[in-house]
Amino acid sequence: MKDEVFFSKGMIHLKEDYPDLYKASVELNDAAYNGKVLDYKSLKLIAIAITAASSDDRAVKKQMISGMQELGISKDEIVDVLRVVLLTAGKPAFTKAIKILYKITD
Amino acid sequence: MKDEVFFSKGMIHLKEDYPDLYKASVELNDAAYNGKVLDYKSLKLIAIAITAASSDDRAVKKQMISGMQELGISKDEIVDVLRVVLLTAGKPAFTKAIKILYKITD
Amino acid sequence: MKDEVFFSKGMIHLKEDYPDLYKASVELNDAAYNGKVLDYKSLKLIAIAITAASSDDRAVKKQMISGMQELGISKDEIVDVLRVVLLTAGKPAFTKAIKILYKITD
Amino acid sequence: MKDEVFFSKGMIHLKEDYPDLYKASVELNDAAYNGKVLDYKSLKLIAIAITAASSDDRAVKKQMISGMQELGISKDEIVDVLRVVLLTAGKPAFTKAIKILYKITD
Amino acid sequence: MKDEVFFSKGMIHLKEDYPDLYKASVELNDAAYNGKVLDYKSLKLIAIAITAASSDDRAVKKQMISGMQELGISKDEIVDVLRVVLLTAGKPAFTKAIKILYKITD
Amino acid sequence: MKDEVFFSKGMIHLKEDYPDLYKASVELNDAAYNGKVLDYKSLKLIAIAITAASSDDRAVKKQMISGMQELGISKDEIVDVLRVVLLTAGKPAFTKAIKILYKITD
Repeated sequence: MKDEVFFSKGMIHLKEDYPDLYKASVELNDAAYNGKVLDYKSLKLIAIAITAASSDDRAVKKQMISGMQELGISKDEIVDVLRVVLLTAGKPAFTKAIKILYKITD
Repeated sequence: MKDEVFFSKGMIHLKEDYPDLYKASVELNDAAYNGKVLDYKSLKLIAIAITAASSDDRAVKKQMISGMQELGISKDEIVDVLRVVLLTAGKPAFTKAIKILYKITD
Repeated sequence: MKDEVFFSKGMIHLKEDYPDLYKASVELNDAAYNGKVLDYKSLKLIAIAITAASSDDRAVKKQMISGMQELGISKDEIVDVLRVVLLTAGKPAFTKAIKILYKITD
Repeated sequence: MKDEVFFSKGMIHLKEDYPDLYKASVELNDAAYNGKVLDYKSLKLIAIAITAASSDDRAVKKQMISGMQELGISKDEIVDVLRVVLLTAGKPAFTKAIKILYKITD
Repeated sequence: MKDEVFFSKGMIHLKEDYPDLYKASVELNDAAYNGKVLDYKSLKLIAIAITAASSDDRAVKKQMISGMQELGISKDEIVDVLRVVLLTAGKPAFTKAIKILYKITD
Repeated sequence: MKDEVFFSKGMIHLKEDYPDLYKASVELNDAAYNGKVLDYKSLKLIAIAITAASSDDRAVKKQMISGMQELGISKDEIVDVLRVVLLTAGKPAFTKAIKILYKITD
């Protein structure tokens, strides 16, 4: 299984208390990150993009850190992703993500 | 300028009637699609992802068609993008995008 | 009551079938459009803005038409509103709203 | 499997062309609609609620029709769901859903 | 009036400073939680669902605590609600809500 | 340039590291806040509205503070804006913004 998200505390509890839901969640994750043609890194960049365009701080931070540590995604690559976030989701989402990125990389 | 969106009817009017706003819109587009490290195709896949995760049918359709025609993006590549949409934005967004994709490619 | 939305077909049915819900809906509308300091027109421009930033085509169209017919809001004023939509909600929302505006005014 | 959504045209194609993604999608659906304590009908009402609060017309319509036909959900029950949509997601989402509901039931 | 939200600090100020807006807010709340056929608990589960699918942490937390304390909603019932959130709104919303739930119940 | 947002830490870094993206961001900002007919204050009220309807706490807070300090926007004016947020985006967004406003003005 490819996504570190499952090692978060909530997910550990989920595994014990609701194994069927945990299993579906893992399988969803696996299907999402096992592309037919695009590699894992490209798919991870897309997950960073969607999360930055619409989710809360912690989800954005978690996706960025996971992408950088697991897959060697660079700051420049994430800024490129955020260019498209600025275009398609507006400046508040962009500014929030830039701030998170610099906090991580500083 | 890289994005066909500007050739839509609304944008042609905008160019004539509000040239300053049109110019900012073009420059935003250019900055978004001129990545430092990621190529145009990777950025376009990201635009498809964010649009599918959050926008209306026409925007999704336009992004997919533009990506396929201009950049040779394949159906498999878009389905890979939509895997991450299913994971991060849920099934209604995913189903909507799959339906649009098959309408385009059929 | 200030908002023409209530004269839509769904709302007429609602009035007959679920009068308590209809009443709450009208009162919400009245509270929203009776500002302490801002006038109705300013509040309507804000409703156009939020709708353009996040809602479906019909809601955007209805808000624009209602603002133009009831309150004499001009095309230039709506384009100014949409400038801020481009900034804060991104280009798909902006393009969608520009297209609707030109369809209405053409 | 409980959800008719899979019989939509897009999903039939998906099953043939991308069986792994289709399978994950079915399993996600099954995990979602097999509650530990809440019954299928209660979960379906929740799906109608979230869809009405955030999705496009077709997803809302599909959820409502499926809930009414498969599970005997009544108009009054859906209106009750939409009360909470008005409260938590605002009047454009509420009005859109009321309109769809009356089109279905008329 | 059924919703504890009004006892939040912001709402106390609102009551004093903007009584008309406060009154509309209370009446909206009452209309939302007084279903014709569904009971208060079912409607509260729906409010938890929509909030988890789209709102910030504090709103989710407040809805969950209020549902558990006022109405005896169980952890299992909330997890069932979150199954549908995973399906219809994606994993970031689901993970965020699971984390909040476990923080409350631990 | 009219928007204090650019003086945030993330934006200072952006200016040094990605000058082209920074420039597009400034120009977008300028186009957004230089209306043809509406003045800067009206446009700022609209930015507060859209941000309150859809963004995270920090973006809302920043828009409110900037509007009050730079442009003398009053508490009553912001509450009027939030009336429309309650109508068009629902009570969680409204409550969140009211809370932020009272924290700023207390």
